[in-house]
Amino acid sequence: MPDAATRPYNFSAGPAAIPDDVLQQAAAEMLDWHGSGIGVMEMSHRGAQFGEIFAQAEADLRELLEVPADYAVLFMQGGALAQNALVPLNLSQGAAADYLLTGSWSRKSRHEAARYCDVQVAADNADAPGTIAPRSSWRLRDDARYLHYCVNETIDGVEFEQPPQGVTAPLVADASSMILSRRFDIAAHGCVYAGAQKNIGPAGLTLVIVRRDLLGHALPACPTVFDYGVAAANGSMINTPPTWAIYVAGLVFQWIKRQREGALAGLDAIAARNAAKAALLYGCIDASALYVNRVHAACRSRMNVPFQLRDEALGADFLAGAQRHGLLQLKGHKSVGGMRASIYNAMPLAGVQALVDYMREFERSH
Amino acid sequence: MPDAATRPYNFSAGPAAIPDDVLQQAAAEMLDWHGSGIGVMEMSHRGAQFGEIFAQAEADLRELLEVPADYAVLFMQGGALAQNALVPLNLSQGAAADYLLTGSWSRKSRHEAARYCDVQVAADNADAPGTIAPRSSWRLRDDARYLHYCVNETIDGVEFEQPPQGVTAPLVADASSMILSRRFDIAAHGCVYAGAQKNIGPAGLTLVIVRRDLLGHALPACPTVFDYGVAAANGSMINTPPTWAIYVAGLVFQWIKRQREGALAGLDAIAARNAAKAALLYGCIDASALYVNRVHAACRSRMNVPFQLRDEALGADFLAGAQRHGLLQLKGHKSVGGMRASIYNAMPLAGVQALVDYMREFERSH
Repeated sequence: MPDAATRPYNFSAGPAAIPDDVLQQAAAEMLDWHGSGIGVMEMSHRGAQFGEIFAQAEADLRELLEVPADYAVLFMQGGALAQNALVPLNLSQGAAADYLLTGSWSRKSRHEAARYCDVQVAADNADAPGTIAPRSSWRLRDDARYLHYCVNETIDGVEFEQPPQGVTAPLVADASSMILSRRFDIAAHGCVYAGAQKNIGPAGLTLVIVRRDLLGHALPACPTVFDYGVAAANGSMINTPPTWAIYVAGLVFQWIKRQREGALAGLDAIAARNAAKAALLYGCIDASALYVNRVHAACRSRMNVPFQLRDEALGADFLAGAQRHGLLQLKGHKSVGGMRASIYNAMPLAGVQALVDYMREFERSH
Repeated sequence: MPDAATRPYNFSAGPAAIPDDVLQQAAAEMLDWHGSGIGVMEMSHRGAQFGEIFAQAEADLRELLEVPADYAVLFMQGGALAQNALVPLNLSQGAAADYLLTGSWSRKSRHEAARYCDVQVAADNADAPGTIAPRSSWRLRDDARYLHYCVNETIDGVEFEQPPQGVTAPLVADASSMILSRRFDIAAHGCVYAGAQKNIGPAGLTLVIVRRDLLGHALPACPTVFDYGVAAANGSMINTPPTWAIYVAGLVFQWIKRQREGALAGLDAIAARNAAKAALLYGCIDASALYVNRVHAACRSRMNVPFQLRDEALGADFLAGAQRHGLLQLKGHKSVGGMRASIYNAMPLAGVQALVDYMREFERSH
């Protein structure tokens, strides 16, 4: 087993770094979970042992996010991209649905939804990337079944500080790269979904939190296994769920609950640390003549920090040097280029400090 | 790390036992895959490291199953139950599709498919459970887009010895609980799918092997992420695949390739061992006055052996004693009752011998 202290800092946008403690526990229990003699991957999903793991994971998640009792928590498969179809299949009734466009992911969501329902764009930042159109300019329909938005655009680095206010239709949020990074008002939403591979755990698990009164209206074309109502009625076990991913997610939830930052605990400690990490990195970028982040200050992501080098020709050197300094996976998404530092929960402040130190050194020497 | 030699024998129908060697390697590499400093769960699916893992897994699978070059191998999510919808969504064109019914799983497949296409039952063993209707009695349509069957009924213990012969329409096989247990003629099929959690690896991964000329005809309602053609064109990475499950599956494929049984190697060694295990267990059952398996000898499953105790009142005692002997998860599926021993690839002959010894002892003492 390698020493966790010697591991490099991993800035991957997802699948992303997982806390060392979680990985060490998962490794230690691999062949024998709690004296059962079998590993978690080998357990029947309907047995008492996995039942315990599953129930604890759901309870911890509900506690961390303060999920109201009238919301179902579903552990599904297919990633957030599958939800782009499954949200309209489950919630649109083939009628009107409004979409806020703030970057690559919300555009994908809108595009897929248009195959299943009557989509209207409520607002679009295409002419002003790195901003969110002011609330007063949104075109919302009274008969919309929901308003969809992406809380944090993983590629574009654009984040909603708060859920949209004063919207009549139920809010549906893609929270993939924001969930569990800070408090989030689930009760303000009809549905919140998130791919696990940023702040939750391994790829292959998708979390869906949905208000129960919205269940039971899936379109006829919706596969039974992806019908939220069926999933809720069967405790996410209409068939075999991704048991290992749920187990690791549960370990991550426990890890979050254990976190302390001064007087703060759990998700509040995580949020304070994330705010400090983001302030440190944006501070470095804004004070620099080499690096630039073009997202409006009011909607800068605390999780994904894209930045460009004003001299693009230095990009390869920057990445090679970062690698030598143990700073991994900093290359930006191919659609926008440049760099991107994803600083999810598992990234310690020391990792961001190491990145900032390297960035300053690189700027001085170039 | 527990000693693998002391682990109990796990007869779970799925998620099922995974070879000790595989679990030990996965644990050892958890924080640091091949000196990369990061674990497999933390790797970008688009990076070179995971790319290597993915390519090796696909290559090994193609070698083991002798998958012809004109077949795509897809690593998907949602389980075989999702495929019950995704097969007709991708392959039926909303037209005719014939279904062979041999047990619980093929009945579920037929039921879901009827939502998407014109389903006809080609044959049904409802009046003669534990049999497969003779080929000559099947009702097949000339215009059927495919004939669907379940190679091995996990609950009922009914297995096709060979793929159906003389069928004009492409064969579509649910091979979940049979795949990689012996040679299997992929080229005789249009499409073969399998949930991973029996002989492949962790739950949350579904394998789809499909002839490329059948791609590109998905129904409009098919979610983009589940369109076989889109998945094939994007190398199963239209979005983040279940990376950990693919990695573990790859370790299992390597383990299969390493197996030796006398002069036999790889899948042939596995098949010989599986035949010996099944012969030992059925031999014990058939020689007994207490245990009974009612499946016709010609179609008895080599993977899932359901059996009843003629005195059903002894069931609880039998299970409690088995547990004390380190023989786990032998309770039959709730829909059929009794017992079930799933003896997938990871179950050694010694495990079946231990079960048979216990069964004989239990019969003598009751």
